[in-house]
Amino acid sequence: MNETLALQFTHRSDRSFSTAPISDDLLESIIEAAWHAPSSMNAQHVSLVVVRDAAKRARIAELAGGQPWIAEAPVFITVIVDFNKTSVGLQNVGATQHIHESVDGFAAGAVDAGIALGNLMLAARSLGLGVVAIGGLRRNPQEMIDLLELPALTYPIVGVTIGHIATPAQPKPRLPLASFRHDERYHAEAIAPAIATYDKVLPEYWHSIGRADGLPWSANLAKPYSQGFYRATKPVAAKQGFVQEQ
Amino acid sequence: MNETLALQFTHRSDRSFSTAPISDDLLESIIEAAWHAPSSMNAQHVSLVVVRDAAKRARIAELAGGQPWIAEAPVFITVIVDFNKTSVGLQNVGATQHIHESVDGFAAGAVDAGIALGNLMLAARSLGLGVVAIGGLRRNPQEMIDLLELPALTYPIVGVTIGHIATPAQPKPRLPLASFRHDERYHAEAIAPAIATYDKVLPEYWHSIGRADGLPWSANLAKPYSQGFYRATKPVAAKQGFVQEQ
Repeated sequence: MNETLALQFTHRSDRSFSTAPISDDLLESIIEAAWHAPSSMNAQHVSLVVVRDAAKRARIAELAGGQPWIAEAPVFITVIVDFNKTSVGLQNVGATQHIHESVDGFAAGAVDAGIALGNLMLAARSLGLGVVAIGGLRRNPQEMIDLLELPALTYPIVGVTIGHIATPAQPKPRLPLASFRHDERYHAEAIAPAIATYDKVLPEYWHSIGRADGLPWSANLAKPYSQGFYRATKPVAAKQGFVQEQ
Repeated sequence: MNETLALQFTHRSDRSFSTAPISDDLLESIIEAAWHAPSSMNAQHVSLVVVRDAAKRARIAELAGGQPWIAEAPVFITVIVDFNKTSVGLQNVGATQHIHESVDGFAAGAVDAGIALGNLMLAARSLGLGVVAIGGLRRNPQEMIDLLELPALTYPIVGVTIGHIATPAQPKPRLPLASFRHDERYHAEAIAPAIATYDKVLPEYWHSIGRADGLPWSANLAKPYSQGFYRATKPVAAKQGFVQEQ
C-alpha cells in the first residue's frame, strides 16, 4: 500500500472547514496537478475558475442550493468544460469547430472535467486539506455563468470546495464491489443482491455518524432521480453552444 | 512535493507495453482505487468491465480505430456510465427513474466516469505500470455494447489500457497555465496568446521525440473538431436510454 493508494482508498467528502486560508504555494500545487491531467485528443478542453473572494463564495453557496461549506472554506474551484480554447485554435487554421454541438463533445468534456476534478481532490488531500465535490452548481447554471463571466462554448459542470478540515468526516461505504467490477462482460445478475446489501449497510453508516434522518440508498435517490434532476442543464448548455446535434 | 503530487505532475500516456501479465493483487488495488471514488449524489453510476481475454482486447483495439497497444498490454478496462444500478434501486422503492433521459444525467455520469478513470490511471502508475486512456471506443459504441454485454441504461464512455511499460513515453507539454487557471472569473484575453505559444511548443516536443509528422495543436484538432467527431454517440446513447430530454 503506497501513499497514493492509501489516499484513494480513504476518500471522504468533508463539509466541516475552518476559515483559515490556503497558501498560494499549496493552491498552485493543487491546480498544477489538474493541469497535468490527460485529455481526449490532447484537446485540453477544461479550465478552472478559482474563487477565493468571500462574497463570491457566499453567492455560490446559495446558487448550489444552500451549501454553507462553500462559504466557509477559503477556496472554491469551478471546473469548466471549455471548448472556447479549441474553437480559437481552429479559427487560427481556418477551420470551424462543430464538435461542441454534439453529445459526444459534451460527454468527452465532462469526462475530462472529471479527471481534472479527481486530480484536484487527491492533490488537496495529499496536502492534508479536505475537499467536497459540488454538482449543485448545475442547479443554477446561468447564474454561475454570469458570476464567473464565462464566454460561449464553456460550461460550469462541477466544482470543489477545498479547505482546512475542522471536524473530519467518516468515509462512506460503497455498493458492494461485485456491482462495480465486472470481469470480461457486464454481470447484470450481480446488481440486485448488491443493492439489497447496501440498502442495509448505508443506514448503519448514517446511524454510526449520528444522522437520524439518513435513508437507504434506493430511497434516497427516489426523488432526485425520478423528477428532481437539474433541468436547466439542457437549455443553458444549448445557449452556450453545446448539445445541439440533430 | 509528495509522492502523489509527483505522480500527478508527471502524467504521461504510454503506448509501448510488454505482454507480461498484471497480478490479481495489483489489479484489485487499481480497481478498488476507482471504487472508492466519490460520485454525484452518492449514486455510484459507474461500473468497470475488466477485460484480460486476449481475443476481446484484439477486438477492442480494432473497434477503437486501430490502437495496437490495447491488444498488447494485458488489461483493458472500460468505464461504464451506469444508470442501470440506480434504476433497479428506484424500482425497489416504487419509483421510476427519469434522470438518465436528461442531458444533466449523462453529463453527471460522464464526470463521475472521469473521476474513476483518473483514479485507475493514478493507481496503476503508483504501482509502476503504464496507462493510456482510450476515448476511441466511442467510435463504435454499439459493437462495444454487444462485446461487453451491456444492458440498457449503461454506456461505454471511455477506457484505459494498463500494462508494464516497454519503452517509456515522454510527458507532453500543456497549454500555458494562464489559459487553464482563471482567478475569480474567466480571463478570455489569456486564451489567444497561450495558444500562440503552445502552437510553437508542441512541434518542438514532437521533434524531440522523433515524430516528424507531429502538427501544432490547432492544426491537429482541425479535422476531428470540425467534422470527424463521434456521431454514433447520440443515437447509440439514445438507444441505451440516455439524452432524450425534450
